[in-house]
Amino acid sequence: MSDKATPAPAAPAPVTGERWSPDHLIRHLCETIRTVGVGNRLPSERALAERLDVSRTALRDRIQLLEGLGILRRVPGSGTYVQALDSSGLALVLELAVAACGLTATDLLSVRAALERQAAIELAAAGDPGRLTPVRAALEAMETAVTAEENDTADREFHDALLCAAGNPALSFFADALRRPLRELTTERNAAVNRLPDNRSRMTAAHRTLYRAVAAGNPAEASSALDETFRAPHGNG
Amino acid sequence: MSDKATPAPAAPAPVTGERWSPDHLIRHLCETIRTVGVGNRLPSERALAERLDVSRTALRDRIQLLEGLGILRRVPGSGTYVQALDSSGLALVLELAVAACGLTATDLLSVRAALERQAAIELAAAGDPGRLTPVRAALEAMETAVTAEENDTADREFHDALLCAAGNPALSFFADALRRPLRELTTERNAAVNRLPDNRSRMTAAHRTLYRAVAAGNPAEASSALDETFRAPHGNG
Repeated sequence: MSDKATPAPAAPAPVTGERWSPDHLIRHLCETIRTVGVGNRLPSERALAERLDVSRTALRDRIQLLEGLGILRRVPGSGTYVQALDSSGLALVLELAVAACGLTATDLLSVRAALERQAAIELAAAGDPGRLTPVRAALEAMETAVTAEENDTADREFHDALLCAAGNPALSFFADALRRPLRELTTERNAAVNRLPDNRSRMTAAHRTLYRAVAAGNPAEASSALDETFRAPHGNG
Repeated sequence: MSDKATPAPAAPAPVTGERWSPDHLIRHLCETIRTVGVGNRLPSERALAERLDVSRTALRDRIQLLEGLGILRRVPGSGTYVQALDSSGLALVLELAVAACGLTATDLLSVRAALERQAAIELAAAGDPGRLTPVRAALEAMETAVTAEENDTADREFHDALLCAAGNPALSFFADALRRPLRELTTERNAAVNRLPDNRSRMTAAHRTLYRAVAAGNPAEASSALDETFRAPHGNG
């Protein structure tokens, strides 16, 4: 099934001028964008304003907003096109939402764990060991790390490589957007792990178990090993 | 740890006028918003423009964009405040990003499964059966559903109740935002389940297993039962 071919849901009966809240207008533009698809051109401003029964000024204001977010691009003399956002653009939009809704880093870490668990399960089910090469390289870097900094870098690389290897763009999209809001918390947690040698070898072992479970095609074991790699460090001293 | 008390990461050295891309400016505003926290007032436009070394026009343009998204609110004679977005506002921002990046509904369904699995694991670990009352009610509605429509409604209620019961606002935030983009796909899948009575009783059984695993405090079993409730229906006939 192609999502692009899907017609937009039936629009509610348009209402005149003032009764359109900006949100309704954005929502309709959003549906239009989804129907039109990345790389394609929106209907003309005039046609859109007529269809939605709003002023062209109101419409232009919303299009400008979407342009500012990198979702639409106006090409003079040609029209307005739907942009394929790069991951930094996507991350920015999500970051804005996260910044403005008071989600805590701890709550967001659950989402990151959820995404990685899904990646691990999909990878274990795929049975394609070639995809695991970067994950194994990061694991080896963790095992041979000398400084706390090397360990921290290899740890992050391991998690990123795992998510990336799953090859699911939606998992990567959300994980990318969470990276910046989570950076501080994860830096703090990794520092706490690195302060105690016991923590560090326990964490490296958890990563090794996770790698082996995924490589062996064992989703259930991968899932519990993943949880262990997210466990808060014992002893914050 | 309170995220609001966390100072913003050190700003890169500001550069003059033209070299600021809108994205950099938005990113800095985003960090400012996170530091200031919901309900509080941004520094004055003049102070912000000075700190970031950009024109007040460029700054005002970006503030307008964030106002359009419902992230900031200007109060005449008082200042610009950070808004606590309601869930529909959050969903809209995420929907925009999703609409403009060509993620397929199938990829997004993985994310929804990942979030629900996390919710199920957190619920199983919490050991608070009182929270499961709405989940059980939805399960009972599935078990006694007569029409395909009743079954579909109860099925959705079950999944929503499960996510909500976990009480993690970040999981709910992402799940809410995915609801609209996924509606069509899930309607199609549920219809396919409902076409064959065998599918339907198999799916109801999977939901019952999931409920029991969560109620019994068994995260591993909850995780695999959750996967079964997301499995594509057998036989599309």
